[in-house]
Amino acid sequence: MSIVVVGSVAYDTIETQQGRADEVLGGSTSYFALAARFFSPVSIVGAVGADFRAEDMRLFTERNIDVRGLERCAGLTMRWHGRYHEDMNKRDTLGLALNVFAGFAPELLPDQRRADYVFLGNIAPELQSRVLSQVQSPKVVAADTMNHWIENERPALMRLLARVNILTVNDDEARMLSGEHNLVRAGRAILKMGPDTVLVKRGEYGVLQFSSGAMFAVPAYPLEEVIDPSGAGDTFAGGFMGFLARQGRVSEPILRTAVVYGSVLASFVVERFSLERLVALTWEEIDQRYRAFIELTDSQYARWNSR
Amino acid sequence: MSIVVVGSVAYDTIETQQGRADEVLGGSTSYFALAARFFSPVSIVGAVGADFRAEDMRLFTERNIDVRGLERCAGLTMRWHGRYHEDMNKRDTLGLALNVFAGFAPELLPDQRRADYVFLGNIAPELQSRVLSQVQSPKVVAADTMNHWIENERPALMRLLARVNILTVNDDEARMLSGEHNLVRAGRAILKMGPDTVLVKRGEYGVLQFSSGAMFAVPAYPLEEVIDPSGAGDTFAGGFMGFLARQGRVSEPILRTAVVYGSVLASFVVERFSLERLVALTWEEIDQRYRAFIELTDSQYARWNSR
Repeated sequence: MSIVVVGSVAYDTIETQQGRADEVLGGSTSYFALAARFFSPVSIVGAVGADFRAEDMRLFTERNIDVRGLERCAGLTMRWHGRYHEDMNKRDTLGLALNVFAGFAPELLPDQRRADYVFLGNIAPELQSRVLSQVQSPKVVAADTMNHWIENERPALMRLLARVNILTVNDDEARMLSGEHNLVRAGRAILKMGPDTVLVKRGEYGVLQFSSGAMFAVPAYPLEEVIDPSGAGDTFAGGFMGFLARQGRVSEPILRTAVVYGSVLASFVVERFSLERLVALTWEEIDQRYRAFIELTDSQYARWNSR
Repeated sequence: MSIVVVGSVAYDTIETQQGRADEVLGGSTSYFALAARFFSPVSIVGAVGADFRAEDMRLFTERNIDVRGLERCAGLTMRWHGRYHEDMNKRDTLGLALNVFAGFAPELLPDQRRADYVFLGNIAPELQSRVLSQVQSPKVVAADTMNHWIENERPALMRLLARVNILTVNDDEARMLSGEHNLVRAGRAILKMGPDTVLVKRGEYGVLQFSSGAMFAVPAYPLEEVIDPSGAGDTFAGGFMGFLARQGRVSEPILRTAVVYGSVLASFVVERFSLERLVALTWEEIDQRYRAFIELTDSQYARWNSR
């Protein structure tokens, strides 16, 4: 089943201990779509400026990502400039220019309004709600958010949360949203705000999934080298939602497998700057790392040894 | 098979956001032994002062922990005073008095010298080596260490590492010991120093196990409330070594199950101050949480749902 994703498409300047990339393609939607496309058709809702490069548009279209909803506006594409610490869970934002994204008022295409799977990337909760209201009868709605909206747009965010099935947040955001320092309490408190499932992304420490009956915890895939953690959360969400949409239904086992696929996709994207690794990625590589991930996390390893 | 453990027995004063405990029983050996005893006979090598309380000695003996090697010396039992931050992975040491432990020169009893399983708790590498040399033909030797020895006793530590099968360290110690910031590289570098297995303890983020052919990652069991993280690493080691000694042999599946049991035991000890929770713990509780832990971490959950 197809997925509609709304969020940013941007040009990023990224500095890490390993190097620097200037004016490279980024934005939550780009990462999400390039991960989800391995599992399901993806259709983008977003805005870019007159400066958006033809090669970047082709990067989407050549991978069957539907960009009819990616509006080209007068003005500049959004810009973000960030610098990561040696502890890559920490970063400083050195510059942010919303540009064409500032006046973005998403209008879905007729076929996008019939989408079954919707991912509301990290934009203002009012905009997320506006997109959601245009979708006629979505099967699964997932949303991301961030500290800025939790602090400054809480009422709008709370209205949105009552309408979403799945929320993805990082650990700090989960704490801020719930007012609970302990993540188990935080996860349970957020479930009461509406979502059936809360995914707490903990960067290099993996993901905690909370749903009404169960908790699921996976580590991140341990890598020898992380070059650029940008977009890891959106890539995780793309792999996760892509797998869900491919299954066409939701259950605890399906959610768990989706978390693993999300983690696998995220483990690739951080190996290179920007979207480089996702663009070159193959199904064979995904499948191989999926199996490595299962082996990595399997406490009942005897099954593997005895095959 | 029986385990000999050498390390500290101390009186701790502990401050956390949840409260405070004064002059309570602690020390690496105490935590280790009270966890390992659920699986295997445990025999202690250590020293306490004239002030060591009879009730604390009984706490060991009533749980079949062999204290014949716990030497009672003139002077005071070791004291430690620590204060945890809200982020419980961080703590400050406010006071440390080695007392009788300062002149500790461990001499094993004849039957201890025939032990199959040896755990060298976090004491000076020279002392760890001295104990190890007294054991005739150990099957499995595990050791813990800390930043102080890595910085100041590296040659002695390296000599020890060439003789141990299993090393337990936390993530900062793994980085310091290896000179690698990345944990995968750090783990592999430490394997080259001698151990067959390196266990990197990451507190609330769980454990990474490195061995020559495989990596294993488990999250920590997520708790609604952590009261006192003191001794969690030693409790983990106790559950881990206890299970290994009970099996009597080492393989990747056995190591992985041992890591889970270690994690389970550690998840209990932090629920109360000091050794309180370990002392009251039952097999039924361990078994129940073991099953919950497997369910928590099982990415192939379908197996569970279909039972």
